[in-house]
Amino acid sequence: MADTKTRIVVKSGELFRRHGYVGTGLKQIAAEAAAPFGSIYHFFPGGKQELAAEVIRTSGQLYQDLVMGVLGQAGDGVEAMRLSFGAAAQLLAKTDYADACPIAMVALEVAGTNEPLREATAEVFASWTDAGAGVFGRWGYPADVARRLSIAFILALEGAFVLARTQRSTEPLEVAMSTMIDTIRAATPA
Amino acid sequence: MADTKTRIVVKSGELFRRHGYVGTGLKQIAAEAAAPFGSIYHFFPGGKQELAAEVIRTSGQLYQDLVMGVLGQAGDGVEAMRLSFGAAAQLLAKTDYADACPIAMVALEVAGTNEPLREATAEVFASWTDAGAGVFGRWGYPADVARRLSIAFILALEGAFVLARTQRSTEPLEVAMSTMIDTIRAATPA
Repeated sequence: MADTKTRIVVKSGELFRRHGYVGTGLKQIAAEAAAPFGSIYHFFPGGKQELAAEVIRTSGQLYQDLVMGVLGQAGDGVEAMRLSFGAAAQLLAKTDYADACPIAMVALEVAGTNEPLREATAEVFASWTDAGAGVFGRWGYPADVARRLSIAFILALEGAFVLARTQRSTEPLEVAMSTMIDTIRAATPA
Repeated sequence: MADTKTRIVVKSGELFRRHGYVGTGLKQIAAEAAAPFGSIYHFFPGGKQELAAEVIRTSGQLYQDLVMGVLGQAGDGVEAMRLSFGAAAQLLAKTDYADACPIAMVALEVAGTNEPLREATAEVFASWTDAGAGVFGRWGYPADVARRLSIAFILALEGAFVLARTQRSTEPLEVAMSTMIDTIRAATPA
């Protein structure tokens, strides 16, 4: 069994992903993490906001590692899109359309209402953008094109997740993959 | 001044869009709509869930009319993308990145937790998909391609909104537009 702090962060991540930041209470986190209520304030004196900032950073980094691991198995951008959207579709279907982006819902919740957490989510998206641009760069695209393709990939994933979770269908992921393949081909010298 | 029911629905739509379904209370709605608290249950005996279903349907239809109005000014798909992503970028910047999709956050909140509201959001996305496919169809694309382009457009908008609101930048909308133009060109016979 992981240590108490790790259990709190991991369980909070699951709850935030499924019920949002506002919809998750500290009592619920303590109960599901099998942690004394007071331990949350012991590890996170700033309470729910400090805990959420840690969850955003941690789950953002984990998801980045996961996606970069998939992209790293591909020989080029087109294959990378097939692998990553395929893996995302499998995960969504396997979890009954529950597990998608770990931070999207929280990002929308805090965008206009909680500036420190908005900054934490913005830093995660910036880190994903840089990591994705690095991969496209290694496939030979100039830096500005690599950055554009990376942003296009992230927003296609995020948008497809919104539709896929709502419609309980993997069709939006297939469409997003096909769109990304078109835009990668358009950016690739013949 | 609009009638009480309309004020409740319009104000709820604004609050849901900015604070989410869970993060908006009925007392807050009554206060901001200048409506007696009891009038909410008078018009919506099912309470917050029934009100939210009405808000999802109403704001979904209004947004569909708005976007279709913009698409209708374009002579082809490429021009339509320039107009619609341009208008979305202007609106976001003008509202300090607050006003984007009226239902995306609620859709993520309810996807795994409230089946009647999930169905309401799924119906809105299905209606947008059909309307968009109709427009691409009139520009000469076969039905299956028109449907794919419509889904691609909706998910590109949704994904770009997540990033744009989080990063307080219109760059994701510009990238989404450029991606959509690539995929439309790939689907257009030379």
